[in-house]
Amino acid sequence: MNNILELRSDSFRTLMAYFRCAIMEIETKFNVLNEEFSLQHDRNPIADIKSRLKSVESIEDKLTRKNLPVTCEAIEKNLNDVAGIRVICTFIDDVYMLADALLSQDDITLIQKKDYIENPKPNGYRSLHLIVEVPIFLAEEKRFMRVEIQLRTIAMDFWASLEHQLNYKKNITNAEMIQNELKHCAEVNAELDRRMSEIKRNIAGMQ
Amino acid sequence: MNNILELRSDSFRTLMAYFRCAIMEIETKFNVLNEEFSLQHDRNPIADIKSRLKSVESIEDKLTRKNLPVTCEAIEKNLNDVAGIRVICTFIDDVYMLADALLSQDDITLIQKKDYIENPKPNGYRSLHLIVEVPIFLAEEKRFMRVEIQLRTIAMDFWASLEHQLNYKKNITNAEMIQNELKHCAEVNAELDRRMSEIKRNIAGMQ
Amino acid sequence: MNNILELRSDSFRTLMAYFRCAIMEIETKFNVLNEEFSLQHDRNPIADIKSRLKSVESIEDKLTRKNLPVTCEAIEKNLNDVAGIRVICTFIDDVYMLADALLSQDDITLIQKKDYIENPKPNGYRSLHLIVEVPIFLAEEKRFMRVEIQLRTIAMDFWASLEHQLNYKKNITNAEMIQNELKHCAEVNAELDRRMSEIKRNIAGMQ
Amino acid sequence: MNNILELRSDSFRTLMAYFRCAIMEIETKFNVLNEEFSLQHDRNPIADIKSRLKSVESIEDKLTRKNLPVTCEAIEKNLNDVAGIRVICTFIDDVYMLADALLSQDDITLIQKKDYIENPKPNGYRSLHLIVEVPIFLAEEKRFMRVEIQLRTIAMDFWASLEHQLNYKKNITNAEMIQNELKHCAEVNAELDRRMSEIKRNIAGMQ
Repeated sequence: MNNILELRSDSFRTLMAYFRCAIMEIETKFNVLNEEFSLQHDRNPIADIKSRLKSVESIEDKLTRKNLPVTCEAIEKNLNDVAGIRVICTFIDDVYMLADALLSQDDITLIQKKDYIENPKPNGYRSLHLIVEVPIFLAEEKRFMRVEIQLRTIAMDFWASLEHQLNYKKNITNAEMIQNELKHCAEVNAELDRRMSEIKRNIAGMQ
Repeated sequence: MNNILELRSDSFRTLMAYFRCAIMEIETKFNVLNEEFSLQHDRNPIADIKSRLKSVESIEDKLTRKNLPVTCEAIEKNLNDVAGIRVICTFIDDVYMLADALLSQDDITLIQKKDYIENPKPNGYRSLHLIVEVPIFLAEEKRFMRVEIQLRTIAMDFWASLEHQLNYKKNITNAEMIQNELKHCAEVNAELDRRMSEIKRNIAGMQ
Repeated sequence: MNNILELRSDSFRTLMAYFRCAIMEIETKFNVLNEEFSLQHDRNPIADIKSRLKSVESIEDKLTRKNLPVTCEAIEKNLNDVAGIRVICTFIDDVYMLADALLSQDDITLIQKKDYIENPKPNGYRSLHLIVEVPIFLAEEKRFMRVEIQLRTIAMDFWASLEHQLNYKKNITNAEMIQNELKHCAEVNAELDRRMSEIKRNIAGMQ
Repeated sequence: MNNILELRSDSFRTLMAYFRCAIMEIETKFNVLNEEFSLQHDRNPIADIKSRLKSVESIEDKLTRKNLPVTCEAIEKNLNDVAGIRVICTFIDDVYMLADALLSQDDITLIQKKDYIENPKPNGYRSLHLIVEVPIFLAEEKRFMRVEIQLRTIAMDFWASLEHQLNYKKNITNAEMIQNELKHCAEVNAELDRRMSEIKRNIAGMQ
């Protein structure tokens, strides 16, 4: 009970502010890479960047499900997705190019990498997930914060947003049929992503 | 010659400012519709809005190609796409819903409508194009300005941006092969748009 | 009690969305005027535009204080400041020029005008307050919504934000001294606004 | 002549992109400090951040005036203000607090500091100017770029923008009188800044 109260405390508000700062730092890193790449290739690899901070309710739920105390310490130690950034790329190649460039930076530490593009989830979900640690520069100290980064193409993102809507519905009359149909769309999507990338490479190859 | 000079004049700068204002008015109209729709359906029909003002060079080129004098009067009378807005929708249904809602407003006059979704261009291009007249409220007067609106899905937009890159390449070694491949992708894209819309309708039908 | 529940209802959420739309419409009107004016005078009359929607708590408080039922109907009929816009101008002249240009538009109805620049509040507060009605264009209807507009100079805004901080403090040891000091600053501020406007007019008068 | 051509080259465009990235990095640093400070003091020390990249014309002019070759190398070695950021603070104390916090960060190198608040320019101009070096993280390397930072209060900024307008006027009929009047306003402004800071400290001192 007094655990839950901790999520209304000053130290919780401070921690959330730090996560917001971590999001800003990672966003800037991607904006810099986008700027550099645009210059070299005359097109933007990044179509959009979205970020979100996990809500107090979701944090509470997740800690409780994991049988962890609802404290700031438990959050920092155990939750990797309080700060989340989604980078929507134009092509599959851009996803890997951006991930590699970010991970090669000397102030970034990779904590975890899951490649759901190589190995899609059973429902058809594709994306590249990274968990990294990034320094934020506060007035008096440099602090390392964790951020979850999801990199995906426009097509993957569109698919994921539709799949997400399905998950929020309760009455599941013909859910299985819809799931099958969604999975089929995921496969057509993946095929399309590959063909569009191929076309892009052919176009880039021209003088 | 003194025609071209006119595009550096104060009256040209004023005209461009009016077109910028017309873009703001139309953007606000779509933002209002997005707000209203989000409320009713718990999702945003508009994924993104982009706008652009035709460059001085493009205006000059177009007038010259049409054998028209390079004057402000000629621009207002003959060019419908100086102010351009692109509305990227999540689903095909959203495209038509938004277009209908805009066109039913009593201060909007439809000048032209071309439905390249029903009837794609030979290369595979799909989008709904509208040319409308919208009032802008200046300090001393109300003025009617033309704006070109392109409504399309995320999938159509991605396809169009790749096709656009191809058009800017000069050396066309295997251009025909790429064009065929692009056209094929356009068809798969259209099929995917239809299936995703169908899934969305099935999900929305659930309680 | 079920009154208060109404502020969690769908119709309340809809009403708030309409107020958000009214804010967008008024903001666009000021952006258009700023664009037009910038062109004529080579400087922006508007330094900043801020907007806010009254919080559920403040709405509840205000209705209760006024002995009104906590219902959507009561909100629309009685509260004029649910949608609020603050327009920060560079000079005093800009405040009046913008207000006049807005009020002369044929789709804007003036409900109330309070000129706290001519007649500052006893504490020294200066601003021009307007309450207007503006149409918003929904999918099926045109609806008229009220918006409170505060126009002020940069100097007035800075003063007001400091005064606002004072009001939120409870322990008022030397409050009277601070209030006197603030009032004195308000007067120096007003004098400075007048002199800076005078300088601006002298500069503008040059060729 | 071919010097001037260099400012249309790819390497010039790349250099400008790097300066844009440096601006992003510094802006993020100030946004992080603003976030942290807001948390501690319940108010934002930063009212606004503006940034600009020096135009090609101004770069050319400045190099020529300094008798330097118009090359990318000369730009990087000699011009400290290609990338410029202006941080508008609410109070004078915030100016120094933010400058100190930035300069204490281990990836920032101070190149030059000029305190025109302590020692205003003869015309009355006040601001704190810093030139710093900041690393930008590119795909393949970490690069150090120079940025000019101007920190000032809202009142200083307003004054400076008016003074700037005067400098762009050619016909200087009563220029001296205006300059005297401006200088007088600068002094009243400075006095006002001190008094408002004092009030803020008194308010903050309350419980």
